[in-house]
Amino acid sequence: MIADSQALGIAGIGVYLPVEGVSNFARMNQFEVDERFINEKLGVRRTLVKDADEATSDLAVRAVRALEAGSAIDLAAVECLIVVTQNPDYNLPHTAAIVHGKLGLPERCAAFDISLGCSGWVYGLSVINAFMAQNGMQSGLLVTADPYSKIVDPNDKNTVMLFGDAAAATWIHTAPRFCSGRFTFGTIGADYEHLICRNGQLSMNGRGIFDFAARRVPEDIRLLLEMNQVAIEDVDRFLLHQGSRYMLRTIAARLHVAEERAAFVAAEYGNTVSSSIPIMLAEMLDDATVRTVVVSGFGVGLSWSSGILHRVA
Amino acid sequence: MIADSQALGIAGIGVYLPVEGVSNFARMNQFEVDERFINEKLGVRRTLVKDADEATSDLAVRAVRALEAGSAIDLAAVECLIVVTQNPDYNLPHTAAIVHGKLGLPERCAAFDISLGCSGWVYGLSVINAFMAQNGMQSGLLVTADPYSKIVDPNDKNTVMLFGDAAAATWIHTAPRFCSGRFTFGTIGADYEHLICRNGQLSMNGRGIFDFAARRVPEDIRLLLEMNQVAIEDVDRFLLHQGSRYMLRTIAARLHVAEERAAFVAAEYGNTVSSSIPIMLAEMLDDATVRTVVVSGFGVGLSWSSGILHRVA
Repeated sequence: MIADSQALGIAGIGVYLPVEGVSNFARMNQFEVDERFINEKLGVRRTLVKDADEATSDLAVRAVRALEAGSAIDLAAVECLIVVTQNPDYNLPHTAAIVHGKLGLPERCAAFDISLGCSGWVYGLSVINAFMAQNGMQSGLLVTADPYSKIVDPNDKNTVMLFGDAAAATWIHTAPRFCSGRFTFGTIGADYEHLICRNGQLSMNGRGIFDFAARRVPEDIRLLLEMNQVAIEDVDRFLLHQGSRYMLRTIAARLHVAEERAAFVAAEYGNTVSSSIPIMLAEMLDDATVRTVVVSGFGVGLSWSSGILHRVA
Repeated sequence: MIADSQALGIAGIGVYLPVEGVSNFARMNQFEVDERFINEKLGVRRTLVKDADEATSDLAVRAVRALEAGSAIDLAAVECLIVVTQNPDYNLPHTAAIVHGKLGLPERCAAFDISLGCSGWVYGLSVINAFMAQNGMQSGLLVTADPYSKIVDPNDKNTVMLFGDAAAATWIHTAPRFCSGRFTFGTIGADYEHLICRNGQLSMNGRGIFDFAARRVPEDIRLLLEMNQVAIEDVDRFLLHQGSRYMLRTIAARLHVAEERAAFVAAEYGNTVSSSIPIMLAEMLDDATVRTVVVSGFGVGLSWSSGILHRVA
C-alpha cells in the first residue's frame, strides 16, 4: 500500500508562533471562570494572537523561513506546496499561490490549498506523500496556517480562551527523519454545524465536539494500530490534536495510556488547529528515543484522521 | 511513476447545469458590445446562473445525483470525496463535509476541499488518483462546483458576460473508462492579483490572463506530450479550460492543431471554472472514437495543470 512512498517522509519542520499573547488569567472576571477551569479544563493559560496586519500567507512564509533556518531545505528545489487553511487571505486565489509568490518558488512547483481544520495536517501528510510519489517529486512543503483570531468572537468564552494563532511548515523529502504508515480517515458531515464560521464569526458546540472526540478518537487509534500491526505499548508518543487538556486526558484514559504519553502541551499558545501536531513533532525530530509516533487530528467537519510515524533517521 | 494507480481511473461523470440563464445579446446595450464580440471574442452567448438559495453544496449534490442516474456508482461504497471550489458554503467547515452529510456517505469516507480555480479538475484528478491508490481505496468522487454568480459584479462586462454556474461529479473507480498518464503543474504566484476576489467581489485582469494562457498552455502541452511520449497527431481531442473562444483559438493556432480538435463549446453555459473540462469529457465517455485526450486547466493563481487520458474501456 505504501510501497511507492517509502522514500518520502518528514525531513524537517519549521514553526512560527506570534510573539503577542493574551493571558487567560486576565480574562477570569470577564468570563466568570476560575484558575482551576483554566489550568485543568482548558489547559490553555495564554493564547497567541497574530498582528492585525499579518495575513495567513505571512504566517505561512514565516514558518517556511524557520524551516529554512533549521534544515538543509533548498527552496529552489521545491516541487510542491500545499497550504492547509480555512482562513485564507482571499477565497480566491488560493493562499498557496500567494505564498508561492512571496517565497519566489519555481514556476514548475505545484501549489494548492486544502480546506480542512484540526484534521488537516494528518490528511495533508497523506495527500502530499501520495501526490509527490505519484508525480515523481522529491521535495515538497506542507504548510498549516489557520489563524482563528480572524474569526473568534472576543466575547465568546468557548473559543477566544482556547484558540491560538500559529503556523508550521513540514518538509517532505527523500531523506526523511520519519516515514508514515497507513492512515485512517473519517467524516460525520451531518454534524457540520458543531464548528462553523457564519458571516465571519466562529461558533462552536463545545459539548458536541467533546463527545465526538472522546468517542471517535480512541476507537480510531485502535483501528490504526491494528491496520499497522503496531502494539499500543510500542508507541512512544501519541501526538493528539490539542483540543483541550480535559479532552486529551479523557482520550488518554480511554486508551489506557499514561497522560505523559498523550500530553496536552499547548498551555502557552493555545489550540492552533491544523498546526497543533507539527508544533509538537518539531520538538522530537532530534530525540532519538522517540521512534514510533501516533498522530491524530479531529474537529471541524466533523472530520478525523490518524497516522503512524516511524523514525528512519 | 503511475504504476500504483493503473487500476484507478474515470468511470463516470455527472453534470449539473442550472436551468436559468441570461443571454449576452440582452446585455449588448448595457455593455456597448456587438454580436461579433459575443460570438467571436467571448464565444459565450448565454451564462447560466444558479438559484439565489442554491448553495455550492447543493450544486455538488445535484451533480452527484446526475452521476448516480447515469452510472453504476454505489454511494454506500464511496471511500473518498474531494470538492474543488473557491466559493464554499462557508470558509469552515469545508464544503465536502456538508456534501458528505447531504448525501449520507459512509463515516469512513475521507472528505476534504481543494481550493483551486480553473486548473482545479486536472489537479484534482491527480490528487484523488494518488490519494486513493496510496490508501487502497476503490471508489471516490471528485466534485467541482465553483459558482461565480456569488461574486461577479453585475456591472463588470469582463466577468458577468463570461462566467457561468455549473457542477460536475467525476467518479474514480477500479473499473475505469479513461486512465491518466503523467501530469504537469505550474504556478506563477507573483501574478496572483490577475484574478482575485476582494471583499466578496471578483476582479479580473483579462489581458494578463490571456497573455499568460496564450504563452504557457501551448508550451505546457508540448512538455506533457513529450513526458508521456505521445505524438500531437495521435491526440483525438484537446479539452482545454473554456476561458473564451478567442483564447482557445489562439492556443489551438499556437499548437498547430485544427480548431475542431480544441473547440470552444461553452457558448450556451459560459466559463464554468473547474467544471469546464469534465462537462466536455462527459459527452465523450461513450464515444469509442475518442481514445486519447489531452486536458489542460489554467487561470486563478496563476496556476495551470495538464494531463493525458487514455481510453481503457
